[in-house]
Amino acid sequence: MTGASGFIGRHTIPYLLKNGCEVHALFRDHEPEIKDRKGLLWHKCDILDPAARERLCDEIKASHLLHFAWCTAPGEYWTSPENMKWEQASLDLVMKFADNGGKRAVIAGTCAEYDWGHGYCSEEGTPLNPASLYGACKCGLENSVRQFSAEAGLSYAWGRIFYVYGPYENPERLIPSVIRALQEKRVACCTHGDQVRDFLHVEDVASAFVSLLLSDVDGPVNIASGQPVKLREVVLAVADHFGAGDKVEFGVVPAPEKEAELIVSGSTRLADEVGWRPKYDLGSGIAQTVRYWQEKTHK
Amino acid sequence: MTGASGFIGRHTIPYLLKNGCEVHALFRDHEPEIKDRKGLLWHKCDILDPAARERLCDEIKASHLLHFAWCTAPGEYWTSPENMKWEQASLDLVMKFADNGGKRAVIAGTCAEYDWGHGYCSEEGTPLNPASLYGACKCGLENSVRQFSAEAGLSYAWGRIFYVYGPYENPERLIPSVIRALQEKRVACCTHGDQVRDFLHVEDVASAFVSLLLSDVDGPVNIASGQPVKLREVVLAVADHFGAGDKVEFGVVPAPEKEAELIVSGSTRLADEVGWRPKYDLGSGIAQTVRYWQEKTHK
Repeated sequence: MTGASGFIGRHTIPYLLKNGCEVHALFRDHEPEIKDRKGLLWHKCDILDPAARERLCDEIKASHLLHFAWCTAPGEYWTSPENMKWEQASLDLVMKFADNGGKRAVIAGTCAEYDWGHGYCSEEGTPLNPASLYGACKCGLENSVRQFSAEAGLSYAWGRIFYVYGPYENPERLIPSVIRALQEKRVACCTHGDQVRDFLHVEDVASAFVSLLLSDVDGPVNIASGQPVKLREVVLAVADHFGAGDKVEFGVVPAPEKEAELIVSGSTRLADEVGWRPKYDLGSGIAQTVRYWQEKTHK
Repeated sequence: MTGASGFIGRHTIPYLLKNGCEVHALFRDHEPEIKDRKGLLWHKCDILDPAARERLCDEIKASHLLHFAWCTAPGEYWTSPENMKWEQASLDLVMKFADNGGKRAVIAGTCAEYDWGHGYCSEEGTPLNPASLYGACKCGLENSVRQFSAEAGLSYAWGRIFYVYGPYENPERLIPSVIRALQEKRVACCTHGDQVRDFLHVEDVASAFVSLLLSDVDGPVNIASGQPVKLREVVLAVADHFGAGDKVEFGVVPAPEKEAELIVSGSTRLADEVGWRPKYDLGSGIAQTVRYWQEKTHK
């Protein structure tokens, strides 16, 4: 697993261990908090370094690849030229994995690959038309890995992630920033809040990826709840835990230009074909997330 | 220019020189027959080697990039894992070119990026759905380079090549193999010949790329004649030059499974926006090509 100390990666480890996997967990910058234990081995490795990549693939000779690592700095990752480097590195990683006897690869994709003019995004029906470099490089990678896998006899799936929230999310992102404002009794300044999105708790994202990895389902699969919710509702659900609905101001931050109104998964592949079910709904997921930030503050 | 000693690249050099360009011509395996002259400098360089790539971009600091190099071995290039390496190298090449002050990049794409279920392929209207690793890696590259260029302020176009013929074509491909058979008074064994394709003489492909490079037209542009022709007609036009229509046998070679019936450019961007016109029609192009092989044989 690459990106194993990242937001989604770290939550994935327990699900892999529970399923009896021997986990080789790769990290670069973020020293892992979870330590080595039975079945879990950390490797410090910069996947962007070709020699390090080759050495590790050769050393581990993994049967399965779960590839999360990518550039993720909030605000920057949409347009960063680093996306081009991650696409290159990922193409090579998949080849090296296959060369070393790899059997199945599951890679993190994104809803930003879809044409957002369509709103409800399904793997079969919705055209791909990324509007960002991030989406384009993920989409470009998927295109090539799909064909490469078919020809190399590699089993492969591509999990398109929508909106993720939960413990260890980057504090600058929407839900943590609202929680922190309300914790500190500040006003939470938001955009209009009418954007409709598809949110999934990070533990559910993690367990969905593990289910997908251990299945033989092929190709793109939306990793999403399928439940449309307005950002306004999400923010107010957070505020409820602080009894602070009046501390939220909508419309005081300008929404990004050309922002899509609706980005929701219109697919049931994950439920129907992988047989995966979520642990949290939005209410229980937000409650758990608020508790995490409260405990973190009181430590 | 990469791939400068290749089939299309070598024909491109005269057009670049005629337009007053200072040409840095890159080659790897095929020693160029055209020698250094005023305005033309050859560089032996393996674009797949990251260090060589970086050194050359840094040394040349080109204003324009014309990128033809790719894996092209007949029969193999459709499925070769080398496609993944060329995609990686090309992503990096474009970044390095931009980093060194590059202004405009024109890259060779392919009609194999299109969904061949549509037959008439246009840049705006036809979905991309490559059925081969070759098409997928070209398509993946285009996806990323398009977004990267928009964000890096790089001018960029992507020339989708259809069916090319003419002097220096690989002798194993259709037209040269028919010419050689008829020259040697053998029977030319063909498939049914009812496939409809879009053929363009290689000198016209080369001049179209130079026109595109020197224009500021943006995005994908089909490099094609727009004239549908059956393979049978092409082969019979060749046979006419040998008075040997009776030496051609159609239907004795099985056509590849799932072969598209119709692959033709349904676009006029190249004529309307670039303002380019071909020098050859199919008749004069085939006549010139037959002469080339006859002269080559008599040398």
